[in-house]
Amino acid sequence: MKRNIYLSKKSLAEARRILFESFQWSDYKRQETVSAPDAVGRTLAEAVFARFSSPHFHAAAMDGIAVKAEDTFGVSEATPKTLTIDREAFYVNTGHVMPADTDAVIMIENVNVLNQGQVQIEAPAFPWQYVRKVGEDIVATELLFPRSHVVTPYCVGALLSGGIFEVAVRQAPRLLIIPTGSELVDWRAMGREDLKPGTVIESNSFVLGKLVEAYGGAFERHAKVEDDVAAIEQAVTGAVKGAFDMVLIVGGSSAGSEDYSRHVIDQLGDVLVHGVTIMPGKPVVIGRVHGKPVFGIPGYPVSAIIAFEQFVGVAISRILEQPERKRPTIEVRPTRKIASKLGVEEFVRVKLGTVDGRVVATSLPRGAGSITSFTEADGILRIPANLEGLNEHAPVQAELLKPAQAIKNTIVVVGSHDNTLDLLADQIKVSFPHLTLSSSHVGSMGGLMAIKKGACHLAGSHLLDAEDGTYNRSYIKRFIPNVRVKVVNLVLRDQGLILAPGNPKEIKGIESLGRDDVTFVNRQGGSGTRILLDYKLQQLDLDSSSIKGYDFEEFTHMSVAVAVLSGTADAGLGIYAAAKALNLDFIPVVTEQYDLIIPEPYFETDNIQRLLETINSKRFKKRVEALGGYHTAKTGELITR
Amino acid sequence: MKRNIYLSKKSLAEARRILFESFQWSDYKRQETVSAPDAVGRTLAEAVFARFSSPHFHAAAMDGIAVKAEDTFGVSEATPKTLTIDREAFYVNTGHVMPADTDAVIMIENVNVLNQGQVQIEAPAFPWQYVRKVGEDIVATELLFPRSHVVTPYCVGALLSGGIFEVAVRQAPRLLIIPTGSELVDWRAMGREDLKPGTVIESNSFVLGKLVEAYGGAFERHAKVEDDVAAIEQAVTGAVKGAFDMVLIVGGSSAGSEDYSRHVIDQLGDVLVHGVTIMPGKPVVIGRVHGKPVFGIPGYPVSAIIAFEQFVGVAISRILEQPERKRPTIEVRPTRKIASKLGVEEFVRVKLGTVDGRVVATSLPRGAGSITSFTEADGILRIPANLEGLNEHAPVQAELLKPAQAIKNTIVVVGSHDNTLDLLADQIKVSFPHLTLSSSHVGSMGGLMAIKKGACHLAGSHLLDAEDGTYNRSYIKRFIPNVRVKVVNLVLRDQGLILAPGNPKEIKGIESLGRDDVTFVNRQGGSGTRILLDYKLQQLDLDSSSIKGYDFEEFTHMSVAVAVLSGTADAGLGIYAAAKALNLDFIPVVTEQYDLIIPEPYFETDNIQRLLETINSKRFKKRVEALGGYHTAKTGELITR
Repeated sequence: MKRNIYLSKKSLAEARRILFESFQWSDYKRQETVSAPDAVGRTLAEAVFARFSSPHFHAAAMDGIAVKAEDTFGVSEATPKTLTIDREAFYVNTGHVMPADTDAVIMIENVNVLNQGQVQIEAPAFPWQYVRKVGEDIVATELLFPRSHVVTPYCVGALLSGGIFEVAVRQAPRLLIIPTGSELVDWRAMGREDLKPGTVIESNSFVLGKLVEAYGGAFERHAKVEDDVAAIEQAVTGAVKGAFDMVLIVGGSSAGSEDYSRHVIDQLGDVLVHGVTIMPGKPVVIGRVHGKPVFGIPGYPVSAIIAFEQFVGVAISRILEQPERKRPTIEVRPTRKIASKLGVEEFVRVKLGTVDGRVVATSLPRGAGSITSFTEADGILRIPANLEGLNEHAPVQAELLKPAQAIKNTIVVVGSHDNTLDLLADQIKVSFPHLTLSSSHVGSMGGLMAIKKGACHLAGSHLLDAEDGTYNRSYIKRFIPNVRVKVVNLVLRDQGLILAPGNPKEIKGIESLGRDDVTFVNRQGGSGTRILLDYKLQQLDLDSSSIKGYDFEEFTHMSVAVAVLSGTADAGLGIYAAAKALNLDFIPVVTEQYDLIIPEPYFETDNIQRLLETINSKRFKKRVEALGGYHTAKTGELITR
Repeated sequence: MKRNIYLSKKSLAEARRILFESFQWSDYKRQETVSAPDAVGRTLAEAVFARFSSPHFHAAAMDGIAVKAEDTFGVSEATPKTLTIDREAFYVNTGHVMPADTDAVIMIENVNVLNQGQVQIEAPAFPWQYVRKVGEDIVATELLFPRSHVVTPYCVGALLSGGIFEVAVRQAPRLLIIPTGSELVDWRAMGREDLKPGTVIESNSFVLGKLVEAYGGAFERHAKVEDDVAAIEQAVTGAVKGAFDMVLIVGGSSAGSEDYSRHVIDQLGDVLVHGVTIMPGKPVVIGRVHGKPVFGIPGYPVSAIIAFEQFVGVAISRILEQPERKRPTIEVRPTRKIASKLGVEEFVRVKLGTVDGRVVATSLPRGAGSITSFTEADGILRIPANLEGLNEHAPVQAELLKPAQAIKNTIVVVGSHDNTLDLLADQIKVSFPHLTLSSSHVGSMGGLMAIKKGACHLAGSHLLDAEDGTYNRSYIKRFIPNVRVKVVNLVLRDQGLILAPGNPKEIKGIESLGRDDVTFVNRQGGSGTRILLDYKLQQLDLDSSSIKGYDFEEFTHMSVAVAVLSGTADAGLGIYAAAKALNLDFIPVVTEQYDLIIPEPYFETDNIQRLLETINSKRFKKRVEALGGYHTAKTGELITR
């Protein structure tokens, strides 16, 4: 098969225009009748008019006596009036039918009961006092809801009270999702251990299916189809000739030899769009087969989601006569400059937090393959095609993935990575479900810089001063002299060499790193671990240029461990927990101090106090100790004042 | 049974504190295991850590050749290098496993294929170029989601990719909803016509049930229970001893003789709170029976909803370890002063619209019986107990019931009521689903005042100038001389006397209203219909004081018709459509002009242009004509320029 080249990529706006104009969306509208309660969340296919009034009779709105107001005019404390029960006055309770010829209720508290047959009043009633008149809430024949209204739980009350027990609602558009790719494996058929190199767990169809439902559609998932044009064609043909309104061919739309979507659509119908100037999501295909929309959805998970939301989701909304779903937006400031390619609209996933009254945005990994960049994101920054990027601190609008309230309750920690931050994020949820700990890993020095920029509430840091063996203190003095901070210890932890199981290269310690047959994996400059390494090399008088792999940098302890596990490197410097997690060998080098650096204005805030409370809890310390390689002797201790 | 008096009403904060502290919420937490896709919308009961890395092998990120980067160092256009396929270079496609000893991919576009066995490159590759390394997205053992995280469709991708196919989620708390009240009828047992005076269609249990689901709970609905202590006690006892976590006794908690909830809870357990200083919602009862929360939910629908959201909903969230649901808020300005009782926190339902860049709020009916005040509301204004009300125009925060985006796309029409506004609200949805027409009925003069105050986008008006027989023009000149407006005709319509079927009082026309045996129902001062009446009375030299019921005012044509239908009045002045809707008699008095008055700054906006487009559509005119009593000869015509 020929390789596809994107000859005529469309802008997002053009591609959407083509999509909207290429189909008669009204043809896809179908309706069904459901009971009023079952209509919650559904879209009304027709306007609904009330059949009954509510109330449908004049009803007492208080407990008391029903009277004819006219009979009470002129009554006062000085000139009270006696009324005969069941002739001039009638006992009523809230909700009762007003007796004939009465038009007002006097509250029972204001009635003197003289005897069983007589009561006395000392004040007049005005007409319709404490009476709910016919139609006070709903008048028969009035419009209850226009068509396209989405029914809420509240609406059920108005519908039933208005005598509408069934309503016509739009049927959910039906989508078939076809995962394609010979490399895919079905998790439902997997044991716990059989994940072979080159295979990928098929997850896109499940993510997309759940998104279809969230947009009000219904989906079926086709069994995985191999990279085989005939098989994909057969699946698509069956769907468009059958009961489905749209088809999503997932995977295989990158510009490679597995690019089947475009080919299949081209064979069976028309390719309307192939390639859109968005990132991620570029390789999306929009086509028409048998008059129905067929999409080629890229296989990378973030591309798949963005292609879905920009095209498939809005198509579902069209069919349901709903306005396009737009996320609420909020003004944010990037903590770093975010470069972007001219001519491409980029969707950057960001973490958000409210620091010093402003919402700051830190970008997450930008690759289309990073599903966690979506699950960890609080928002999305869209960088228009005509910009080369966003400037640090310049205010821009971000689309919110979480409620604005949650952003306010996010504690932003930036700095060195440590596994106990994950535990802390989990443990804080136990006591304070409304709080979220959001951490970005940029190394210890990066954390200090984030404090300086006002981009975080606190920084995690383990910067060793080689002069006096202290941690963090001298770096704070030197790099953020103008910020008053408090320092709280999180943990003491063992750093050492992470090695392949059984230590096949017989590495003894840092001194072995200079060997020709040993490849090292380093941490990035500015990380505490890198500073520790350089300190140790200096002590040993070992030149960094003699270490193979010194320039190969990773950003977290776990990435270092993974490099060792996969054989990319023979050794790396990192924490015990990382080695243990992947069953690797470990040679301790030093026990170091990992602290949290907290600017004073935040220290006293409720959120930080709750964080500290969690750090000081027995439960947290116990979980930390259980990881191994950690010591909690100083955990929660205020290191400086 | 003794009547309950609210001896010790609690503030909202106190009542909530008592609720939170009276139960061991953790006792209600249960969990179950579901598949990752089925977990969408559910709350994680435990933290989830990845089992597999993703990718779990080094994978090519481009189609091309995999090479060892070292082999390519020094290569340039001047010094190209030839590589042997399957020895130094390996064809790979995106997603393929990187062959052993390779660490970079060169894009196929940059490869010169010499022959089947050899390729040439003209640029070096750097290590790990176009390679997705093991764990680039997810590292085995890392925290995917903390406990209490609510699973989204995106999360399914991360879970499956991380090898987590099943997760432990919180089970939905189970609530039993017991509707009580002898007056209630079950709509499912009703024919189309059998609604007897004194009966009420039971709707609260369905509204509350759907709210329970929206909060993540599960509900069962008990069959309606008569006003019978023993029967209610039996239902509650069965529930608390059985599988239910909470019980809602609905209805019967007003301070009347049907106040059973408090009594039942008192008999079976403890009443913790009876009466809260909120409005609506005051008579709520919070109790504990068999160690479980049992609520007495007031019977008025708005009270029921507010009592649910303030107490039951937050209890469900506690059990699910979710933060309390708070609606987003927005700054709004009331279009009128809103008075409120000191010592009571009031929840005022409001319509919102963006006029002149500001969000304006108009209050809806404030009674607890008005379910439509909830279904029509865009937001809720909470007036604290220590305020006597909110001032006109002063900015306050409103809780949003609809997305902020929808508020921007709401066209606010204030003024005289006409049934064709309902049709227009419905018809605009057909062509422009994102637009909403929101109308408030305050009479024609009220509409002009709303324009003056900047409280609406347009006003509906039919103000007759008795001097020259024109409509609206002279009033605009006189009352809003400083606002430049355009006037567009909506309809011509027949106004006349609305009479009981068969005209039993043999009313001939306006002149009959002076008769002693005729009771009239009037429209409010400032309404166009009132002005029309006064003009006709003047023509006939009839004194208003001679008309019985002249002071009995209603605010809409339909309310006037209802007054006639229910026998409250013998005649009212109103539009034909209102008479026809309720099968009443009608004597035409005049055909009048009903116009839309639109300030020029709004006239050119997209929203108003779309409204005018809808008014001018054949479909709209046809629907108007079908109502009867309407004429569309001038519909959509620009009356003034």
